[in-house]
Amino acid sequence: MMALSTRRPPGVAPLVAMVGGGQLARMTHQAAIALGQTLRVLATAPDEPAAQVTPDVLIGSHTDLEDLRRVAVGADALTFDHEHVPTELLDKLVAEGINVAPPPQALVHAQDKLVMRRRLAALGAAMPRFVALDSVNDLAKIDALAQRLAGSKDVPMVVKAVRGGYDGRGVRMVRDSAHAREIASEYLVNGMPVLVEECVELRRELSALVARSPFGQGAAWPVVETVQRDGICVLVVAPALALADDLASAAQQLALRLAAELGVVGVLAVELFETADGALLVNELAMRPHNSGHWTMDGARTSQFEQHLRAVLDYPLGETDAIAPVTVMVNVLGAPQPPTLSVVTMDERVHHLFARMPDARVHLYDKAEQPGRKVGHINFRGTDKDLQDSTKLRERAELAAHWLSHGQWADGWDPHRSGDDAV
Amino acid sequence: MMALSTRRPPGVAPLVAMVGGGQLARMTHQAAIALGQTLRVLATAPDEPAAQVTPDVLIGSHTDLEDLRRVAVGADALTFDHEHVPTELLDKLVAEGINVAPPPQALVHAQDKLVMRRRLAALGAAMPRFVALDSVNDLAKIDALAQRLAGSKDVPMVVKAVRGGYDGRGVRMVRDSAHAREIASEYLVNGMPVLVEECVELRRELSALVARSPFGQGAAWPVVETVQRDGICVLVVAPALALADDLASAAQQLALRLAAELGVVGVLAVELFETADGALLVNELAMRPHNSGHWTMDGARTSQFEQHLRAVLDYPLGETDAIAPVTVMVNVLGAPQPPTLSVVTMDERVHHLFARMPDARVHLYDKAEQPGRKVGHINFRGTDKDLQDSTKLRERAELAAHWLSHGQWADGWDPHRSGDDAV
Repeated sequence: MMALSTRRPPGVAPLVAMVGGGQLARMTHQAAIALGQTLRVLATAPDEPAAQVTPDVLIGSHTDLEDLRRVAVGADALTFDHEHVPTELLDKLVAEGINVAPPPQALVHAQDKLVMRRRLAALGAAMPRFVALDSVNDLAKIDALAQRLAGSKDVPMVVKAVRGGYDGRGVRMVRDSAHAREIASEYLVNGMPVLVEECVELRRELSALVARSPFGQGAAWPVVETVQRDGICVLVVAPALALADDLASAAQQLALRLAAELGVVGVLAVELFETADGALLVNELAMRPHNSGHWTMDGARTSQFEQHLRAVLDYPLGETDAIAPVTVMVNVLGAPQPPTLSVVTMDERVHHLFARMPDARVHLYDKAEQPGRKVGHINFRGTDKDLQDSTKLRERAELAAHWLSHGQWADGWDPHRSGDDAV
Repeated sequence: MMALSTRRPPGVAPLVAMVGGGQLARMTHQAAIALGQTLRVLATAPDEPAAQVTPDVLIGSHTDLEDLRRVAVGADALTFDHEHVPTELLDKLVAEGINVAPPPQALVHAQDKLVMRRRLAALGAAMPRFVALDSVNDLAKIDALAQRLAGSKDVPMVVKAVRGGYDGRGVRMVRDSAHAREIASEYLVNGMPVLVEECVELRRELSALVARSPFGQGAAWPVVETVQRDGICVLVVAPALALADDLASAAQQLALRLAAELGVVGVLAVELFETADGALLVNELAMRPHNSGHWTMDGARTSQFEQHLRAVLDYPLGETDAIAPVTVMVNVLGAPQPPTLSVVTMDERVHHLFARMPDARVHLYDKAEQPGRKVGHINFRGTDKDLQDSTKLRERAELAAHWLSHGQWADGWDPHRSGDDAV
């Protein structure tokens, strides 16, 4: 006998409420539509990406208990577009009988890097070596780490705020112990604990994306390679090419085990370092649909957004196989100087992209363009040939993203001349 | 130099308004979200499928000029979820400068079967033989047709209302001339002209789906087989199996040519009969996303809903290739006696379907279940093996649709017992 969700009148669709009105909520609403549902979102402003596309919007704050209560009323599950809701508030909601998914005792591992590191260490997961600093009195730990890593103080390290970072914010690369002390002190004097960790010599970054339902079902998508620039994910190759089967399998198993051990409900992204000597180290966790899973919208049997809904509603999960040999996802980031009316509008950019690349799968978030801001992404499905050598597919994808960001082709192609094709 | 849509401020997405709030509008909104847009709909009630998922809803009537004006204000294009808007009203909107897509002079061919037949005859398209009756004074034409078809009055024929039919309504099979006279009279005395046409000896029904942009670009999806029961499409196989290449190509060319000749903007479905002796006859036209194109959501590079938006906005069209060897689409129809709370709710039915068929791609419209009403559809992607023999894939699809309709498996499988699998 299988667990069923609470009985509801016939014809009444389940209701999921999501805290946050960003692009993840926007794309979750798209998935909700197919399931006969309408996503409810708690947005901070009516012009947020999700608030513009679903009719069920509450404007409020994710740190206001009353707003969280309001958005949860009548919902079968309360879930998240970001990880910034304080667990104290979520604990109260749980005590009031609200189905918070993932539950706060799981979510805290995506909010607090130190809690995550300690728990994962107890579970035997491999991670970069690190020290935790609560106050400036702990600064000497940095020298001890440097000594342990390299026998000197002249080793590059990484300083991370324990809470609140995303898209590279709260993460700083430092040259040596003195630099680490300086950066760490900036956080510590403001009362923010930090981790200082080794700068791993890595081959590349990977992401193992899984979903887990309350019933305990787990499902893993193929492991992908993520490419970062300035701490922001710019490109994903799915699956990660030339990844040894045993390593891919180990990454999936690790992610499924962490999801189960931490009690995750919904999507879990385990961001990994593949080291130069072929080991896997856990870097970060995210408990929501994740940028490294955007390729699933066009490249997998079940997208991460539908799967997240299925998981939080305790539906059986969908198949996670890829439907193309390889899929490349590129983020469209706001250019340092966004194109203005005098150059070429986003609408015109899309027009030209479609003319040049009729196979591009465009996803726009309807966000104002600001430097470095994620305003959309594009998926390209490749062939068996691209699976052997993805260079050309990646180049096309990067060209497309650059064009949508900058309003000019990277190679100087003139959008107002047609007929030539530099790809 | 390529045609560009009107310049708009940077960051402002194009706006498409759709008349009608049904499932086609609902799924068009899903596609609009990916393009950074929000679909505006004119719905007759707030509980219509599209009205529940987009925030930009006007409640009104498609036969009220003022309502049509209101929904078109500020829109880049006004398009349709159904074909029931009187062309007199659309002509007024066009005169006022509104971009109606498809334009009324094209749309009339999907509204009036007689206008369509006469125009297509002039264009040399093959169709079933027919006679047109404007009043009861024309009833003798039926005998003449019967004589021409079979040399007697004892030949089955089809009586069709010239306007207003859909999903089999307005279409009646008749046994012989006397029966045809009786049925035709029912329409004629109510002032509705009819066509009486030959009952074609057909191998199967096909649909050639294409899109056309104002710029003149055309794009054709693979030709599909459609299976009807009681005049309602229940299943689609994409592509139509064992269809000779030259016939498939002829169907696509015909649809592209009709789209161009009629000045269609958006998606055009050309419903065809494949006769026993291998000819193609045009049956009906639809100028909007069409049931025979629902498979494109999971089985083609570009879905018909995104393509329709691209066409009406004069964007370059997307690639139309299939992304699976074969895709089967089944409609979920309200059962003669919809399952009640005491049996199993739609939510529970979905739950069990997902458990049994994790590859099912479910699309629900959030409509109240009524006998024969289309409340959703399910897509199944098949393999190369299914392309050789689709029997098993079709059986699985039919089983899934029957389950979602009836709340019981066709073979008597008990949803509350797990572990067995009769598929």
